[in-house]
Amino acid sequence: MKIAVDAFGGDNAPLEIIRGAERAKSELKVEIVLVGQTDIIKAEAERNGISLDGLELADAPSVVDMSDEAKAVIRKKADSSMGVMLRMVAEGKADACVSAGPTGAYLMGATTIVKRIKGVKRPALGAVMPGIKNPFILVDCGANSEVRPEMLEQFGLMGSIYMKNIYGVTSPRVGLANNGAEEGKGTDLQRAAYSLLAKNSAVNFTGNIEGRDIPEGVCDVVVTDGFTGNLILKTVEGMAISVFSMLKDVLMESMRSKMAAMMLKPGLKRLKSKMDYSEYGGAPLIGLTKPVVKAHGSSDANAIKNAIRQAMLWTAAGVTEEIAKELRAN
Amino acid sequence: MKIAVDAFGGDNAPLEIIRGAERAKSELKVEIVLVGQTDIIKAEAERNGISLDGLELADAPSVVDMSDEAKAVIRKKADSSMGVMLRMVAEGKADACVSAGPTGAYLMGATTIVKRIKGVKRPALGAVMPGIKNPFILVDCGANSEVRPEMLEQFGLMGSIYMKNIYGVTSPRVGLANNGAEEGKGTDLQRAAYSLLAKNSAVNFTGNIEGRDIPEGVCDVVVTDGFTGNLILKTVEGMAISVFSMLKDVLMESMRSKMAAMMLKPGLKRLKSKMDYSEYGGAPLIGLTKPVVKAHGSSDANAIKNAIRQAMLWTAAGVTEEIAKELRAN
Repeated sequence: MKIAVDAFGGDNAPLEIIRGAERAKSELKVEIVLVGQTDIIKAEAERNGISLDGLELADAPSVVDMSDEAKAVIRKKADSSMGVMLRMVAEGKADACVSAGPTGAYLMGATTIVKRIKGVKRPALGAVMPGIKNPFILVDCGANSEVRPEMLEQFGLMGSIYMKNIYGVTSPRVGLANNGAEEGKGTDLQRAAYSLLAKNSAVNFTGNIEGRDIPEGVCDVVVTDGFTGNLILKTVEGMAISVFSMLKDVLMESMRSKMAAMMLKPGLKRLKSKMDYSEYGGAPLIGLTKPVVKAHGSSDANAIKNAIRQAMLWTAAGVTEEIAKELRAN
Repeated sequence: MKIAVDAFGGDNAPLEIIRGAERAKSELKVEIVLVGQTDIIKAEAERNGISLDGLELADAPSVVDMSDEAKAVIRKKADSSMGVMLRMVAEGKADACVSAGPTGAYLMGATTIVKRIKGVKRPALGAVMPGIKNPFILVDCGANSEVRPEMLEQFGLMGSIYMKNIYGVTSPRVGLANNGAEEGKGTDLQRAAYSLLAKNSAVNFTGNIEGRDIPEGVCDVVVTDGFTGNLILKTVEGMAISVFSMLKDVLMESMRSKMAAMMLKPGLKRLKSKMDYSEYGGAPLIGLTKPVVKAHGSSDANAIKNAIRQAMLWTAAGVTEEIAKELRAN
């Protein structure tokens, strides 16, 4: 299995990406092709004592950055690390890919170059999040700000197949993010999506889910539009950071509290790691013919390694085939 | 100052409401009129040893509950505790009111009976939330699932006046909840609201705010539609509960961790109280001619007392007059 990695995407590129790729190669025993300006990759690796042994390099002269329009990746920056990487996947030279570059361009490039599975209306960005009870996927978390009811239905189906095949959840519970638990809540969009999801026999739809129940992991798949999903995802992240920062103040306020903090160290470390989003790897862009993983823009080496792991699990799991099959059946 | 309280609204009515009203009367030195079936109020108070001395009672034979349509409060259940309470406020027999009854009915009743301030397009439900740095108001958090850009502009203005007058924030920073920080993010609704807010000289608009920054209290006023706002509010509540529950597991796992927990008790208690939403009292229904406060459906006596305090502060603060003035000026 070979994973293509965009060495020039994200705030910490290329150094942290190179480091992450090297770690993935050593620890996860996977073939990696690092895409980007090979002379810079080599120089950075040498300067930082990172071995490139066993890592394949593919040259790409330009970089898509935040100042580019999304379509740049398929037009004037088709030769960018992101564009070259996506074409390698489309042409079967790699099985899956990972980039921490700009979401809009990645989405546009992946949809145009890697292409949608037949029948998929819109690819969706999923975020696998830690829940108290279980991890769950929030889908869409940012690819489609405006959606139609039948897109939400597909997000439910695709999220379900993802959680079943990759996380081994039998019959994943699918909930529709809404402003109340009762049927009939929300806007016309939610009401129409509710009835489509309820009728879809390939989805174990458990009804509406309120914000209060989302973090716990009451559902395995939380369906929503990309605008709301982005706000939910980032609010959860912001709360985790906020609560930990306040907890740290409590632990550091006196000699006595510092002693207690020492005694709690292993447990607190476990808690922190459970709430650490980089542990969960990147966000899958679901609905494409190949696994395409979006790593967070601020990813460090560890986050990149975990995103590569996500791409590996996904490649091995047969998600794409099952989505194609279910959509043919519908 | 006299506050009317719906003794029969909410999951814990009437007992916790009576208890909360009695506490507010004793601790906050405010006149209270408890509205509902007076014979039941008297019997409950007697059975539970609560003194009704100094509490005024106003009889109302029926109750609006979750199974009623919203319009029941102005039609066939106009004689309900909620309906009678709202008329007392409209007729000047009370200065403000508090109910933990169904939101839809309360909103419909308040808009019809207490009426909007001239120029207000839609009353909005605000939620004052604890931020790490400062408390902030999220508006709308559930009254209007679908809004137009000029409504979001008014929510920003009204929330601003609320935070200035009640929380003493000079020139409150107003942020528009969005899926990115840059101008141009979001849907047509956010883009249009952005430009209206930016042009409004009565609002200190600081641009878009992402979910990640909301819990911290980077803005004093977070503007959004009621659908998204409800999901943000409840996700924050759910996260607070989730993280505390995981922290509790860490603290209780061994003899050693239990000892540490004892040592941290005062700090952890402070942290918990900071994250406790009942401390922040009810949600103001802003844009009406009188202060109307919605207490959480599951309010206990303490939450009711805090909602009454919120109504008192609001009555004393001249928010309504300033909103009316600003809307005349526009």
